[in-house]
Amino acid sequence: MAGFVLVNGRPIIVTSPLKNDNLLRALCREPVDHTPVWIMRQAGRYLPEYREVRAKAGDFMALCTNPELACEVTMQPLRRFDLDAAILFSDILTIPDAMGLGLYFTPGEGPRFHHPVRDAASIAKLSVPDIDSKLRYVTDAVSLIRRELDGKIPLIGFSGSPWTLATYMVEGGSSKNFSIVKGLAYSDPKAMHQLLDLLAQSVIVYLNAQIEAGAQVAMIFDTWGGTLSPQQYQDFSVNYMAKIADGLIRNRDGRKVPVVMFSKGVGPKLATLANAGCDAVGVDWTVSLSDARRWTKDKVALQGNLDPCILHADEAVIRQAVRDTLADFGDGPGHVFNLGHGIHPNVEPERLGAVIDEVHRASGGNAFMNNPG
Amino acid sequence: MAGFVLVNGRPIIVTSPLKNDNLLRALCREPVDHTPVWIMRQAGRYLPEYREVRAKAGDFMALCTNPELACEVTMQPLRRFDLDAAILFSDILTIPDAMGLGLYFTPGEGPRFHHPVRDAASIAKLSVPDIDSKLRYVTDAVSLIRRELDGKIPLIGFSGSPWTLATYMVEGGSSKNFSIVKGLAYSDPKAMHQLLDLLAQSVIVYLNAQIEAGAQVAMIFDTWGGTLSPQQYQDFSVNYMAKIADGLIRNRDGRKVPVVMFSKGVGPKLATLANAGCDAVGVDWTVSLSDARRWTKDKVALQGNLDPCILHADEAVIRQAVRDTLADFGDGPGHVFNLGHGIHPNVEPERLGAVIDEVHRASGGNAFMNNPG
Repeated sequence: MAGFVLVNGRPIIVTSPLKNDNLLRALCREPVDHTPVWIMRQAGRYLPEYREVRAKAGDFMALCTNPELACEVTMQPLRRFDLDAAILFSDILTIPDAMGLGLYFTPGEGPRFHHPVRDAASIAKLSVPDIDSKLRYVTDAVSLIRRELDGKIPLIGFSGSPWTLATYMVEGGSSKNFSIVKGLAYSDPKAMHQLLDLLAQSVIVYLNAQIEAGAQVAMIFDTWGGTLSPQQYQDFSVNYMAKIADGLIRNRDGRKVPVVMFSKGVGPKLATLANAGCDAVGVDWTVSLSDARRWTKDKVALQGNLDPCILHADEAVIRQAVRDTLADFGDGPGHVFNLGHGIHPNVEPERLGAVIDEVHRASGGNAFMNNPG
Repeated sequence: MAGFVLVNGRPIIVTSPLKNDNLLRALCREPVDHTPVWIMRQAGRYLPEYREVRAKAGDFMALCTNPELACEVTMQPLRRFDLDAAILFSDILTIPDAMGLGLYFTPGEGPRFHHPVRDAASIAKLSVPDIDSKLRYVTDAVSLIRRELDGKIPLIGFSGSPWTLATYMVEGGSSKNFSIVKGLAYSDPKAMHQLLDLLAQSVIVYLNAQIEAGAQVAMIFDTWGGTLSPQQYQDFSVNYMAKIADGLIRNRDGRKVPVVMFSKGVGPKLATLANAGCDAVGVDWTVSLSDARRWTKDKVALQGNLDPCILHADEAVIRQAVRDTLADFGDGPGHVFNLGHGIHPNVEPERLGAVIDEVHRASGGNAFMNNPG
């Protein structure tokens, strides 16, 4: 049993041994009892119980900044499905918000910032946010979730990548063609590198704080790395994720803390990402896992890559696609099953249940219950 | 000098010899005087003279369906820039509109259909549109443009690909994650194949009518092929473009009519596309031309691939990027210079002038003026 004690008023976890550590082992390319599975946005709008909490919380940031509610929605999918990991419920834009850019959400338009930064002068005014005063709600949520998980499965902490954070900070929100942020990268690369360097420093302290609070895996979401040319992807995205990998706590409580990097839509440029100091890379559904394995030369574990759209088909089609994905990865360790991108808000939860069941069934049964951990 | 005669009330072109045929030669991987260049959306909103005609025409479809105005805006960029090709000004959704789906445009939201088709029953009711009664405005525009071009440079005709047309027809407009159309493809592949087959037949008659009216190149835009998994891309996108390539007029007036296929965001799956019976493939900016050349094994010409965002940088940066792109393609025939996607509406026209000038300067000067054609 896990418990916690208060030290200077903060909860410090007394760790239970991890019962199901298949995720950690797969991410380190070690043998597993079955292929572990978790799902991007597994805590989210497709669950009626999530929509209920979300409605009560008011706006989206009210949900994110309340550790008890963030913990509650993190736990919701685990009560329905036999998932092999929990992932912190939060937003990828917490860092720029803590920097004072003023994050807000408008229905149908996604996240926006009141104060975008579009030139060297506004970039020079930014600084690494103080975690304890500005992002305590995140580390408190991590501690609470670890206590709730009670050692059953590991907890994944996460952050947006510097490039992806920069796109929202410069564009002021979502973008169709990223002309403002990419225009800045082409016309004033010095200012862009200054911004990305500051963001890399910020992500390091942010993820390290999550790890100290109990996160057992660090995941970096580079949602918009795929919008860049090969050279720009290396210079403006991968290089800064590599800096982060260098600065993270990689061992905690006698166990490795694996680092996962996910750039959507980069295809064979996954080879570049695999060299950025991570233990695993996320793979979207537009490439085959066997190609991804070939490109990354089995240097890292792979996480993915079922097309999220397949969850709109019937169960037999879904189960076949799960088996095809497992077969596409092939033999050997180092596969974490996931969708190739987040689950859609309008999917029936039962369809996701079929995915998780089939992953476990087809990759070795539920033998992990007997794993001493 | 070209002219035209009326046969049964329709203008039939009396062809002038083509003075600058570098585009046709490059697309057939034959030697050229300089690397030919044209730009996706070269007739468009970044030009003040376009915005003027567009404002006078009223809505966007009023502009597309008026052959004189479509001809005028097609000619506009040629008056400013030393381009090696003209491309018909039209919309990619003319076919579904002619099928009765009711195309309309809402500001900021892109194209939409009044009557989307979302099941086998509505798909079964569709038929190949009659070109002469429904799409005559397109072939009339082609004839007019050919007359105006007077043999100076070739004219590119185009269509959306079956898959890309289907995405708009099923989703009812633009989409973020394509869950409706891809959900239909996964859950009722038979209905989806029926729709795509009908669209392939329609594109064949549509492009052949453009070729008969004077189009010298046929381009197929598969804007959303990159949203598919490798197997779905083959089954639902490439296979139907291959059917089209099989059905097109490939020689006209004693000269080959090259077929160009462009799927955005498919990376190394360009190898699949290069096997679909085309003469050239379009390449976006997220891959390098040298990789694209390696993947497609020099079987086809390549068209691309400068990042459209670079046109927001200053002239020296733009010119260097043009030279890098030419060097990235390397030696040998088969390169048509273009952006990797359409030019942005907010680009200053002078920046595009620098691109075109640099392509010609760096790849062999303006020697084509002496080319007897």
